[in-house]
Amino acid sequence: MLLSERQEKILEIIQHHSPITGHCIAGRLHVTRAALRSDLAILTMLGLVDARPKLGYFFTGNQAQDPVVKALSEITVSSCLSQSVVVGADMSIYDAIITLFTEDVGTIFVGDNNVLCGVVSRKDLLKTAMGGNDLHAIPVRLVMTPVSKMLYSTPEEKAVVAAQRLLEYEIDCLPVVHIHTAEDDTQKKELQIVGRISKTNIARVFVECGMGRRT
Amino acid sequence: MLLSERQEKILEIIQHHSPITGHCIAGRLHVTRAALRSDLAILTMLGLVDARPKLGYFFTGNQAQDPVVKALSEITVSSCLSQSVVVGADMSIYDAIITLFTEDVGTIFVGDNNVLCGVVSRKDLLKTAMGGNDLHAIPVRLVMTPVSKMLYSTPEEKAVVAAQRLLEYEIDCLPVVHIHTAEDDTQKKELQIVGRISKTNIARVFVECGMGRRT
Repeated sequence: MLLSERQEKILEIIQHHSPITGHCIAGRLHVTRAALRSDLAILTMLGLVDARPKLGYFFTGNQAQDPVVKALSEITVSSCLSQSVVVGADMSIYDAIITLFTEDVGTIFVGDNNVLCGVVSRKDLLKTAMGGNDLHAIPVRLVMTPVSKMLYSTPEEKAVVAAQRLLEYEIDCLPVVHIHTAEDDTQKKELQIVGRISKTNIARVFVECGMGRRT
Repeated sequence: MLLSERQEKILEIIQHHSPITGHCIAGRLHVTRAALRSDLAILTMLGLVDARPKLGYFFTGNQAQDPVVKALSEITVSSCLSQSVVVGADMSIYDAIITLFTEDVGTIFVGDNNVLCGVVSRKDLLKTAMGGNDLHAIPVRLVMTPVSKMLYSTPEEKAVVAAQRLLEYEIDCLPVVHIHTAEDDTQKKELQIVGRISKTNIARVFVECGMGRRT
């Protein structure tokens, strides 16, 4: 709750009786005019009511914006993304697993000159490793999810929206891309990888905000 | 920044000259007393300054608490944990991998009658699967991290603190436990599994707070 109970009451009175003087509001609440001063200052500061000389208080119709919602929804993906790990489509599953461990990530992007082709996850690799296949002989392209079936984010997107997509589709990580449209064919677009956003990045933002360390 | 530039200035004046009247503060800022009214109301409401009749404003020494920090740091682990997946120590690695996929989790806890014995992650299982071992023949107990080396959380802990531990130790998930001390031996403690908290849970809290859906 953003407003106190009394502030809610005052707001309701102003909503139904505007314009109304501070004196009249005080009378309805059976308190002195002075007792209302700070509440009216808060409501005015939040832009919920407007005061006009000789007339009194008006209801503006604005909604009170929760400062938590406001602060969190202003965070963009560009301010919390990580570097991505990109391998070629011809790399073997074995080498991809080694890369996963050495780079300590859960997801590897498959790219050609940083243009996104697909993705392989720890889960995809585990499935292949379980099958008793020769992991040196199978290239990543055979087990990857191709770009046409992938979800992605952009640097300008809100972090809460990207986080919601991670949750909704139960994925650990999204590539963050710049979208380029081909000059000769507007139907054709290339996704240039600029980073990745994962639940780890989101958890870091949460900790920074919750500990007052994010500026 | 929680306070406006003028509110910061007023606070600084009160800090260095308290007690000081509203009239004197207005004089120092070259504005009217009325122009300061709402700023002084805000500072008083936030508990940063105190007003005493006939004396003026005092500096309380309190720190301004950011509403975002306050709201996020009040969230406890109990309000955002998930159910945990617990298997016996004698389960084969093969069956553990199947459980991981069917339950769709990244981490499996190993327990005896819901008392925590250890943990196996997707990474542990991937390492074993890569080795070319007979996955049906190896029990989970041989690859698990034992409880003595595990980190955990409790339902009463703050979610930001648990999230910070996930990030600091680069783990996906912590067991949430009740700690029981044995009656005959206070050195001996049992950790009873009540759930788990993962980066997914933290991301969900972030989205709920950022979209104003958390009550």
